[in-house]
Amino acid sequence: MDYQRHFASAIEALHAERRYRVFADLERIAGRFPKAIWRHQGEAREITVWCSNDYLGMGQHPDVIGAMTETAGAMGSGAGGTRNISGTNHPLVELELELADLHGKEAALVFTSGFVSNEASISTIAKLLPNCLILSDELNHASMIEGVRKSGAKKQVFRHNDVAHLEELLAAAEPDRPKLIVFESVYSMDGDIAPIAAICDLADKYNAMTYIDEVHAVGMYGPRGGGISERDGVASRIDVIEGTLAKAFGVLGGYITGSRAMIDAVRSYAPGFIFTTALPPALAAAATASIRHLKASQAERDAQQRQAARAKSIFASAGLPVMPSDTHIVPMLVGDPDLCKKASDRLLAEHGIYIQPINYPTVPRGTERLRITPTPLHDDQLIAALRDALVETWHAVGIPFAAERPASPERSEKVTPLVVSQAGG
Amino acid sequence: MDYQRHFASAIEALHAERRYRVFADLERIAGRFPKAIWRHQGEAREITVWCSNDYLGMGQHPDVIGAMTETAGAMGSGAGGTRNISGTNHPLVELELELADLHGKEAALVFTSGFVSNEASISTIAKLLPNCLILSDELNHASMIEGVRKSGAKKQVFRHNDVAHLEELLAAAEPDRPKLIVFESVYSMDGDIAPIAAICDLADKYNAMTYIDEVHAVGMYGPRGGGISERDGVASRIDVIEGTLAKAFGVLGGYITGSRAMIDAVRSYAPGFIFTTALPPALAAAATASIRHLKASQAERDAQQRQAARAKSIFASAGLPVMPSDTHIVPMLVGDPDLCKKASDRLLAEHGIYIQPINYPTVPRGTERLRITPTPLHDDQLIAALRDALVETWHAVGIPFAAERPASPERSEKVTPLVVSQAGG
Repeated sequence: MDYQRHFASAIEALHAERRYRVFADLERIAGRFPKAIWRHQGEAREITVWCSNDYLGMGQHPDVIGAMTETAGAMGSGAGGTRNISGTNHPLVELELELADLHGKEAALVFTSGFVSNEASISTIAKLLPNCLILSDELNHASMIEGVRKSGAKKQVFRHNDVAHLEELLAAAEPDRPKLIVFESVYSMDGDIAPIAAICDLADKYNAMTYIDEVHAVGMYGPRGGGISERDGVASRIDVIEGTLAKAFGVLGGYITGSRAMIDAVRSYAPGFIFTTALPPALAAAATASIRHLKASQAERDAQQRQAARAKSIFASAGLPVMPSDTHIVPMLVGDPDLCKKASDRLLAEHGIYIQPINYPTVPRGTERLRITPTPLHDDQLIAALRDALVETWHAVGIPFAAERPASPERSEKVTPLVVSQAGG
Repeated sequence: MDYQRHFASAIEALHAERRYRVFADLERIAGRFPKAIWRHQGEAREITVWCSNDYLGMGQHPDVIGAMTETAGAMGSGAGGTRNISGTNHPLVELELELADLHGKEAALVFTSGFVSNEASISTIAKLLPNCLILSDELNHASMIEGVRKSGAKKQVFRHNDVAHLEELLAAAEPDRPKLIVFESVYSMDGDIAPIAAICDLADKYNAMTYIDEVHAVGMYGPRGGGISERDGVASRIDVIEGTLAKAFGVLGGYITGSRAMIDAVRSYAPGFIFTTALPPALAAAATASIRHLKASQAERDAQQRQAARAKSIFASAGLPVMPSDTHIVPMLVGDPDLCKKASDRLLAEHGIYIQPINYPTVPRGTERLRITPTPLHDDQLIAALRDALVETWHAVGIPFAAERPASPERSEKVTPLVVSQAGG
């Protein structure tokens, strides 16, 4: 038994499939986002980041940084324990009140990441409901899939955003059986949006619980940043709203909000919540500052939508294969893993533009893409520079332009139905 | 189907078993640890924390707070993405180099928590080894148990720290089958230590991989804080050393160290690593500052050992039922969940001393306890005050003193063999 050989061959398999990931070593520059220093082969170079999930640039907002440094100075660097054993710090208690208010729910619970919040909450909720049936959108994030698996509950996968298919499955299940519908509001690789109200109608009709992942929407949609469920006026119809503090809010951590009883049950039964150190007070305070700012300010949301729309329009005018998207996410179709990696490498080396290639299994094979995320801080000049760089790269690497493709680019789920998606990595 | 009733009755069950947890709302005071503000029923009161896992008080060290605030000011509050998609920040790259050096390994990988590092690493390693057999100490932490479960691999549990039993299981397994021995160096609820060298001998003899959890030892044992494996000179014999940045190092996050191939495989295959936002640069920089300080400074380790030994001796002299412990952890036997909660409540209300009660399932029934963690900052006067408060509380609540107990207190695993331990929450 040669253990090292096993690990080495697991890595070789990724190289062979062109799926081996190389992480870019970046140093963000507060106050100059989206600029960053990229370190590579002993050199350091300033580049522009075009694939950050710091969607609104809040990670450099003075109020957020100020809350973080002030609280670290006053209360120290860590929480010092699990939530139960000395780790429940006052800024974290305040953050949970803030989150419950954001989504109009009775209570909230913070986890150290969005991944853990999904995995721990879905598995715990489903375990607490006897003989629970989970109905899961086929493009749900890896963390939700892990939560479903961990619950041990029976799962049925419905076709992406397909309400008719969901109803078929609900109608076929025993009426008295507990049912949990898990889905996302914004799917991060395509940028499309779930029909939340229609799903809530079905949940009412078949007495199912609803669990929505709003990680790519909180802060960015709704008049106070409560997500698509707030924008669509349906937040009160959702049982569990899950979100993250690590994307539009610019910090770290994940959370759920909902009824007091449900939150208390997850708090009391989820190993992934109980047996882990609490979020440090400085991060909690930073997150609260960010949420409060975005509750009151519409400017960041407006600017993000404006720049995303502008980017889509300018790229399309240049003949680039922009994939359809209903949100701030701008996917650019490449359709081949090798070309996708080459395009990304060339953008970085020749143009100082960093966009990570998105290949299988994050997206289905044949839909490899560059996933571009314009923020309020990607100004018109940066968009024009990106267009020029993309056009040059498309020619140089030999990627088909929109007009050279057999049909207009379609949503990934129509190209290859995907049962286990692993979006987001 | 009344969903809320299900959650409510799950909570009622905990109340009925006296296992419902109430979190203390604390505000730590940097520079005055172990003092904190406790908020309760509208009042704020200064108390002394005696159950923190900020074992060396590094959470308030000026170098650590300085690194955190300086880095937040320079690079912002969050990482802005997963490791693969724009989140690999330079301080995190430096932290991983520092950790590899700390344990004398080729490489390291940082996770957002120790829980995730165990769950993701154990499950991924075991999945990558065909037909892997996991041999797991019966008192392993909940996060390790979750990792074992998630792997889907066959598991055999060996009696706590029982090398003879472990050998029996190893000898019975097919020689060519991959085997992974998972265990902890310091078990946090009893404070006892694994026979690491003897386990490594068995691993050599039966060609098994070794995975050790050093979360309650890193920073505190070994001449550079490399843990018990460093202290015992056996770090090079262990394949995977797992640790935390959230206890003695005073920050947040977990990690593994080991061979380059193993680390690369976990990095490439573990969903809990891939699909989650990276640790913020400010936390990474704070952790590096803490590790570097403790690599060079022995003062904190010496003071911790001195104060822990002093506390044990003074409590024992007062007739209090101190449980045997080989480490800085000082467990005080209560032996009843109700009395344990009452003792904790009285210490806080009457004496301003906060020690969370540790009840089932964190420890076996009948071994409920107060788990006391003296740090370098718990001075002689605080120890004397705690002794007096404990004696008063023991009388007032009616808890047996050492002399009133049927036998001398024993280790918990001898009282009730426990297959699924959930220590640490």
